Parts: sequence; structure tokens; C-alpha cells
Amino acid sequence: MTSKEDDRLNGQVINTAIQVTSEPPRVAVIINKKNLTYDYILKSGVFAISVLDESTPMKFFGPFGFRSGRAINKLDGILFKKGATGCPLLIEYCLSVLEARVFDKIDLGTHTIFVGDVLTTEMLKQGKPLTYHFYREELKGKSSKNAPTFAPLK
Amino acid sequence: MTSKEDDRLNGQVINTAIQVTSEPPRVAVIINKKNLTYDYILKSGVFAISVLDESTPMKFFGPFGFRSGRAINKLDGILFKKGATGCPLLIEYCLSVLEARVFDKIDLGTHTIFVGDVLTTEMLKQGKPLTYHFYREELKGKSSKNAPTFAPLK
Repeated sequence: MTSKEDDRLNGQVINTAIQVTSEPPRVAVIINKKNLTYDYILKSGVFAISVLDESTPMKFFGPFGFRSGRAINKLDGILFKKGATGCPLLIEYCLSVLEARVFDKIDLGTHTIFVGDVLTTEMLKQGKPLTYHFYREELKGKSSKNAPTFAPLK
Repeated sequence: MTSKEDDRLNGQVINTAIQVTSEPPRVAVIINKKNLTYDYILKSGVFAISVLDESTPMKFFGPFGFRSGRAINKLDGILFKKGATGCPLLIEYCLSVLEARVFDKIDLGTHTIFVGDVLTTEMLKQGKPLTYHFYREELKGKSSKNAPTFAPLK
């Protein structure tokens, strides 16, 4: 998931983006308030989703999923183009992209759920979307402490 | 997904229930306003989720997924118990159940997204949860016209 504030760009890995209606097409994402993308979505009112495929290498998730855009430029070394909203749209390891404008949101405490009206969509290639299940079970990936599903080991 | 209004019970198949925060544990479901369960959730403020497994037979989806609780008793022939909220909790083909009280919602036009505080949870058995992908690709299931992802053939 990516967003922007003026000419600054940022992104983060999210475990789920969900379609919530067909007419009009709307999607929802859940974002941790500590994340820089949260600030960007609040200010710009737009966000984009890039659907990763199963070929995405683990090294992609290090900087993109576990570092903050306050410390590094998350888009460094990432192939992308800017969409109509100005949000970055990924090109490599990516099946499809869409851009959305925030329609409504719910404050969940630690996170906020943003529902967006889909503005643009593009299919890049055929393939298998990378699911959270595949990331955990096949790639043996971990969850960020900022994920909606994070639970500390007991 | 199931709900109740007084002593009346109903349920429907949903393609996705999503955890939205860990602390406190909250979940979200997207329900078509035409569905009887929508009326029940609005009135009772509670709903339950029963996580089906991959052994769920196609005949389960006929009445539960494609008929209305206004025309038939959806729980007829279904093994269930009532939870603390009074909502039905499935037993057969079911890995785990949870009950939730509505915390907030967003009107999406055709659908409403309900976010609920999780009240009770129970693990019934180990297994593979039935995903929408598995239902479509392996079981060759169709989508209800009331699904958030329904698109008519063109």
C-alpha cells in the first residue's frame, strides 16, 4: 500500500486489502496510526494498492515491511510509476494496481480502517497474488509489530 | 456469519471476515443491506463468525449462501449451539467460532461494514480454513449476487 503527501512518497506492506462493494467499487485497508503512510493518507486523502505476486523475494519485505519511511526512503531501489493521484504504483513483482480516494474511515484505536472509492485500476500481468498465508507458511515471513494481527509470543 | 433478533436466528455465508486490531481484538464483516442478517445485526448489535473448513460440502452453500432467511429457516439441519450473545455458533465443518458486539460501522451504499469487539472465542479443531479462493477454484462455487465482490457476466 502506498500513499503520498505533496511530493513525498511512502509505502508499507499490508497483509490484506479487501473489496467491500462492487457498485461503486470500493476497497478497505487497515493502517497502524504509528506508520508514516497513515499520516500521508490522512493529509492527501488518497492511497494506492499494488498486488504483489508469489515471486516477491524476501529481501523486498525487509525495508518495505519492517523499516519506517521516517528513517529511509522506502521507494529507493523499487521500480514504480506515479498514478493519476500521484501515489506510487509498483511495477516489479506486481500483478495489478489501483488507486483510491478516501470515502470514510473508522478510528479503531491502534489502527484506522480506510474505505476508498476506486479511481484507477490496471492489470500488469497474470499470476498468483501473494497472500498473507503464503508469506507466513511458504516464505516463513514474520509479522510486523504494527500489523493488525500481531501478537507477541507468550 | 450468524446473528439473531430476540429468539429468531439467521446466518449467511460471507467470503471474508477480517481481524482489524489485536488490542483490543476487533473484527470486520461486510454485509449486504438486503440480507436478513443485516437487519438482525442492526437490531441486536451482535454477530458471530464460524470459520468453515475445507471439508464443507457444496450442499451446505445452497441453503446457507443462496437462500434468504425470510423464506426458510437457515439453521434447519445445521448443527449449532447458542453462544453467550445468543447467536448461533456452528459445530459441523467448523474450526473455530467467535462472537462480537458492534463497535462501529460505515454505510457503503449497497453494503455496511460492521466492526465488532470480540466477546468470546473457541477453537473446535485443527484444520484448513475454507478460503474464498478455495471455494471458487477447488469447489467451483459461485458468488451470491449480494456478495461484495459480485460482478455480472458481460
